[in-house]
Amino acid sequence: MNPGTNRQWRVARYPRRDEVIGPEHFTWTSEAVREPDEGQFLVRTICLAPVPAQRGYLEKNHNDFLENLPVGAVMRGRGVGEIVASRHPDYQVGDMFIGSLGWQDYSIQHPRGKEFVFSTRKVTNPLRPLSTQLGVLGQAGATAYFGLLDIGKLKPGDKVLVSGAAGGIGSIAGQIARICGAGVVVGTAGTEAKCRWLRETLGYDAAINYRTENVPERLAELFPDGIDVFFDNVGGDTLNAALGQLAMHARIVICGFISTDYAPGTHHGPINYQRMVYKRARMEGYVLFDYWDRYAEAEGNLLRWYRQGVLKATEDESQGLETMPAALASLFTGGNTGVKICRVAPDPEHLPG
Amino acid sequence: MNPGTNRQWRVARYPRRDEVIGPEHFTWTSEAVREPDEGQFLVRTICLAPVPAQRGYLEKNHNDFLENLPVGAVMRGRGVGEIVASRHPDYQVGDMFIGSLGWQDYSIQHPRGKEFVFSTRKVTNPLRPLSTQLGVLGQAGATAYFGLLDIGKLKPGDKVLVSGAAGGIGSIAGQIARICGAGVVVGTAGTEAKCRWLRETLGYDAAINYRTENVPERLAELFPDGIDVFFDNVGGDTLNAALGQLAMHARIVICGFISTDYAPGTHHGPINYQRMVYKRARMEGYVLFDYWDRYAEAEGNLLRWYRQGVLKATEDESQGLETMPAALASLFTGGNTGVKICRVAPDPEHLPG
Repeated sequence: MNPGTNRQWRVARYPRRDEVIGPEHFTWTSEAVREPDEGQFLVRTICLAPVPAQRGYLEKNHNDFLENLPVGAVMRGRGVGEIVASRHPDYQVGDMFIGSLGWQDYSIQHPRGKEFVFSTRKVTNPLRPLSTQLGVLGQAGATAYFGLLDIGKLKPGDKVLVSGAAGGIGSIAGQIARICGAGVVVGTAGTEAKCRWLRETLGYDAAINYRTENVPERLAELFPDGIDVFFDNVGGDTLNAALGQLAMHARIVICGFISTDYAPGTHHGPINYQRMVYKRARMEGYVLFDYWDRYAEAEGNLLRWYRQGVLKATEDESQGLETMPAALASLFTGGNTGVKICRVAPDPEHLPG
Repeated sequence: MNPGTNRQWRVARYPRRDEVIGPEHFTWTSEAVREPDEGQFLVRTICLAPVPAQRGYLEKNHNDFLENLPVGAVMRGRGVGEIVASRHPDYQVGDMFIGSLGWQDYSIQHPRGKEFVFSTRKVTNPLRPLSTQLGVLGQAGATAYFGLLDIGKLKPGDKVLVSGAAGGIGSIAGQIARICGAGVVVGTAGTEAKCRWLRETLGYDAAINYRTENVPERLAELFPDGIDVFFDNVGGDTLNAALGQLAMHARIVICGFISTDYAPGTHHGPINYQRMVYKRARMEGYVLFDYWDRYAEAEGNLLRWYRQGVLKATEDESQGLETMPAALASLFTGGNTGVKICRVAPDPEHLPG
């Protein structure tokens, strides 16, 4: 049992709708580490994953997923950690644990029915670095996997465009497309360095810098026969441009819309949705929650590809719990390259590499 | 053999992009009726169907369906007529014929491969009024049928919204939804008279006048648990409002977008497409051409429902070939109630009623 201090980020105030979320919306506090009661166990946080949806916890009626948090509450967030004390027979000290740990060093956990089993549980295959459990081997990987294969119905030879391709899910989606036999894989990103990374490290055929290049023209060059699968993380002008270059029977996977979510100004949808008639195309939204009963399939394939070396880890770590608010903010300003992770503590020595 | 005159509408000039198409874009001409050569037959036009896609024939590179027409050409258009002379063994004088007759009294026809078999052919079950072959028993009916059942995947109990519900396809889609067990059927239309027609004649549960009512508020009232199937003919603000009121796993059928097609000004897409993620919804475009191999299924069910009296004819006839340009224009200004048809000649006496 660790008798130390539990540092925490708590909700200080809600950002305005068009305000970038950042450290000013949180308060840095600390309290004594609690001891688990009967049926509970204590988890020491090792890594946390900032994700765009967390912005919604500081907004009333944001969506249908999770309740907003009151001012003063410990910020909610998914992470991976080590069980350091337990009064539950199924959870042993030294087990790796993944779930809603919150933005803090320590959390008390206890099993909570079905949702607990799938989304919050012991780590099946703990490997170093443990950050992969929140990235390429975790929910980011599974979100890319089901989006591309189940919603996008990727077939060998398909010509694939991924927007936000250097982002957390995008950096995995393009790799899965390549592994599963896509004919062409193209990504969009916002810097030359990211574009180079897509081409040279992640196996993309081409990358488009949406800040400096004419996206519709580049798409016309790179997809002369049209886009079969568009995996969209960004929305906005990029979505509209992609809809303008569809192949017949194209599939558009709506994973996110980071370019317009909370960005100032009035946002419009893509007028080129009309092209979906001429191209008999389908656009579909999805969330990972619906795939819990197939989660083992994704987890198994992602781990296999990772061990084979064909799926590269893309975690982008910031160091220290102190950096968590800035890490979340970076998602909305293109500050991350790959899956943003906040490293709170080193990996335990006893894990395999 | 009719030795008479063949009156024709020919293309006079292309409308500007934001100009409503009308009589000024056509020239009224006439020529002698031609005689069929070996393998051909002569069809006398009885009814013509103006459809929004015809606007595209007077525009370069409009879409992927059909070539634009040169100035001076007889205007292209689908119609139903009677074979009045034949030099083809399979087509007899007195047969009813449906196909691309053009905006004219007489046309020379001949079989042209597979496309001919499905879309251009003898009428299987000619009934009076023959205008139904272009409406409730024809392509308008089949477009509503496959959109609602195949793309929309209508299930009994589903809550259905149809936009442009007093339009050609909309007036049939709502009826099919009712026949197939929809739980709630609501339509949008642009006049009180149309709304009353939807409720009192076509069996809609409710109708929203989009010109005088607050559509998002009315949708929230009428669909407290959300819209399961949205059959969209209009696009624009109505589409955006419907996307804001989706049920989980909703299906959005994109049949048309008459509210923005050729309307002046800048048009935007629906920003509420983002709701498709939270609602795991699917939006899909389609065209009837893809359903030729299942056309008999639609035709059979539409005819059965029509004979049972549960599917009402909704043809809205204008009288005389002279009215054809105005009939086309009416589609873009909400001037039609039901399937717009131009009556060129009376039905033959020998048809069953």
